[in-house]
Amino acid sequence: MDATAGFDRMWSELAPVGRSAASGGYRRFAWTAADAELREWFAAEAGRRGLDLTLDRAGNQWAWWGDPTAGPAVVIGSHLDSVPDGGAFDGPLGVVSALAAVDVLIEQGHSPKQPVAVVNFGDEEGARFGIACAGSRLLTGALGVDRARALTDGDGTSMAEAMGRAGFDPAGLAADPETLDRIGCFVELHVEQGRGLAELDQPIAIGSAIWPHGRWRIGLTGEANHAGTTRLADRNDPMLACAALVLAARAAAERYDSVATVGKLSVVPNGVNAIPSEVTAWLDARGPVPARVRQLVAELAAAAEDAGGSLVEESWTEETPFDAGLMDRLRRLLPDAPVLATGAGHDAGILANAGIPTAMLFVRNPTGVSHSPAEHAELADCHEGVRALSTVIAELTA
Amino acid sequence: MDATAGFDRMWSELAPVGRSAASGGYRRFAWTAADAELREWFAAEAGRRGLDLTLDRAGNQWAWWGDPTAGPAVVIGSHLDSVPDGGAFDGPLGVVSALAAVDVLIEQGHSPKQPVAVVNFGDEEGARFGIACAGSRLLTGALGVDRARALTDGDGTSMAEAMGRAGFDPAGLAADPETLDRIGCFVELHVEQGRGLAELDQPIAIGSAIWPHGRWRIGLTGEANHAGTTRLADRNDPMLACAALVLAARAAAERYDSVATVGKLSVVPNGVNAIPSEVTAWLDARGPVPARVRQLVAELAAAAEDAGGSLVEESWTEETPFDAGLMDRLRRLLPDAPVLATGAGHDAGILANAGIPTAMLFVRNPTGVSHSPAEHAELADCHEGVRALSTVIAELTA
Repeated sequence: MDATAGFDRMWSELAPVGRSAASGGYRRFAWTAADAELREWFAAEAGRRGLDLTLDRAGNQWAWWGDPTAGPAVVIGSHLDSVPDGGAFDGPLGVVSALAAVDVLIEQGHSPKQPVAVVNFGDEEGARFGIACAGSRLLTGALGVDRARALTDGDGTSMAEAMGRAGFDPAGLAADPETLDRIGCFVELHVEQGRGLAELDQPIAIGSAIWPHGRWRIGLTGEANHAGTTRLADRNDPMLACAALVLAARAAAERYDSVATVGKLSVVPNGVNAIPSEVTAWLDARGPVPARVRQLVAELAAAAEDAGGSLVEESWTEETPFDAGLMDRLRRLLPDAPVLATGAGHDAGILANAGIPTAMLFVRNPTGVSHSPAEHAELADCHEGVRALSTVIAELTA
Repeated sequence: MDATAGFDRMWSELAPVGRSAASGGYRRFAWTAADAELREWFAAEAGRRGLDLTLDRAGNQWAWWGDPTAGPAVVIGSHLDSVPDGGAFDGPLGVVSALAAVDVLIEQGHSPKQPVAVVNFGDEEGARFGIACAGSRLLTGALGVDRARALTDGDGTSMAEAMGRAGFDPAGLAADPETLDRIGCFVELHVEQGRGLAELDQPIAIGSAIWPHGRWRIGLTGEANHAGTTRLADRNDPMLACAALVLAARAAAERYDSVATVGKLSVVPNGVNAIPSEVTAWLDARGPVPARVRQLVAELAAAAEDAGGSLVEESWTEETPFDAGLMDRLRRLLPDAPVLATGAGHDAGILANAGIPTAMLFVRNPTGVSHSPAEHAELADCHEGVRALSTVIAELTA
């Protein structure tokens, strides 16, 4: 099988799945029809290559080249789900490149000394139930199963109900140390989500670390009232406090060399002629220096409290450095590839925090745009990613 | 029938209809099950008094005391629908008081020289389809039927579909000049939506005018991108422009002695880790001086354009003075009642703009809170409103 042609075929097959005709973006959310279609596609690709398909107890799919029990496996892959109106590359590029890299090695007659697995992690974006990397977190035990089953989506459907409707028994959901023990190392290829490689004029980078990052919920309450009849002096309008906090978050991010974003808001009752009773804003903050990110958040917490509101941590992940030994091997194999840190969370970070030697490869993104229908990578760079990944796997399984 | 007891009975009967157990507020939206229940209740109340029920071609309900064709009618009433999580009084107080005022006159053996009608205007709040006073606007022709039928709610259901599901033929929807011609004058009683009467220590006011008011849609577009990996310098985040406009609206309102509110927002894609591609904010602005309100809006339009966005007018209503002759008669009948303008739109304003002599009565609201579950009026003041309304109707039909 020609690996390049195989990549191109897989890429075109995935293009229409879960794509919104209106926005051109993807809506591939966990345990939906689009998710089921992606899982079926992955299973068929495994079958096509004679790889053994397994489903771990956390709901992630594995395609095994070689006996899973025959020693520590070299694992490659990523995820197939998306953010709301996401792009085609974030996730699927890693899965498709992993399958194409296997094709390259098969074509070369490579006989791996250890099992190789391609993984499709479920629910990486957390777009539906709010917890990013849910599949890998469940696998490692970083996300408890009771909590996961009880998470609800915007329509009030619990993850357990959604899994059940998708034909997966939620009672069987569990951490899966057995599968975890099989992973000798994990290499995740991913489209870059910034312009680092574009500026360095290189197609492929090696990941050094994931920035510390977190999410916080800012709750602001006021007094619902009529927008036409309530004097300015009599108002308690939480939208004003929210607006000030959005601007304060940006100013603080500049001051602390971090990034901070308010990308999600909920307004109650959200009526044109009603002063809101409640505004909830979600803050995403990250940066290379943990203490500076924490300082940024502390300032916003104080501002929220001054406005009579609150700032509650929903998640916080310390800096996750990738495995130094593995990184060194990748640098020797890919001497032209720069080494870059990333502000994005990944399943690779979850596995690294579970003690698994983990590395990442990034593929150039000319505009840096990600989590958007405009997310893009050139086909030639994608093929370069497949070559890099196959080189790495060949070396790791030699 | 004891009019006070009748008022109290009707008030308790309406209390549970369309009330959210979670918020304690009302969700009585046009052409929903709650709306149907309210319409059935109104029809039953008409029957209870031997009043003839008619439905006009615009979907409003009329209960006639006397022959509708026997000369210009004195019309009283209001609406039964609500904003999202609205209060119990805005609308229903006018309908219930009108029925109770009829009870007072029947009890007094009054024999009206002209027909009296109690009206229940449909869809006054525009909570579902976005157009306030839809029922009275359709009646007068101020809202075209084709436009109305095509309006959609948040779920994409058109008004035509919603009406059909509620058992009302949307093909029959039309302006209704015949019904309009029957209206000699209209007196709408309404809970006050500010603290004017509370400060003046009076239970009842006479309305002088409705402030000029309007709604504008502010569209801000940016570039969807990953919240973790996009450098601040590379961002085009419309949430920042939105926040600045929310604060600018408040500042401009202070400068121009008006009120301005951003109570509704829509964020796309509204994900915690996604820089938004699009933020839409709705501006509600009103004030006693039309030119100053227009100036406020012009400043915000310029600010929106500076941010690469747009501000589009969704509605604008000039100041609506109530009928001078009718107001004089009310002042003679209610010599203690102060005369107040209001910032809220009402069906009375739509009828006044259609050339019908129109007046309003306001009932004291101790906190001024409206469009909120906390909206309140004391029962004694409500009874005072019934007495005032019956005095007015007795005089107008003598």
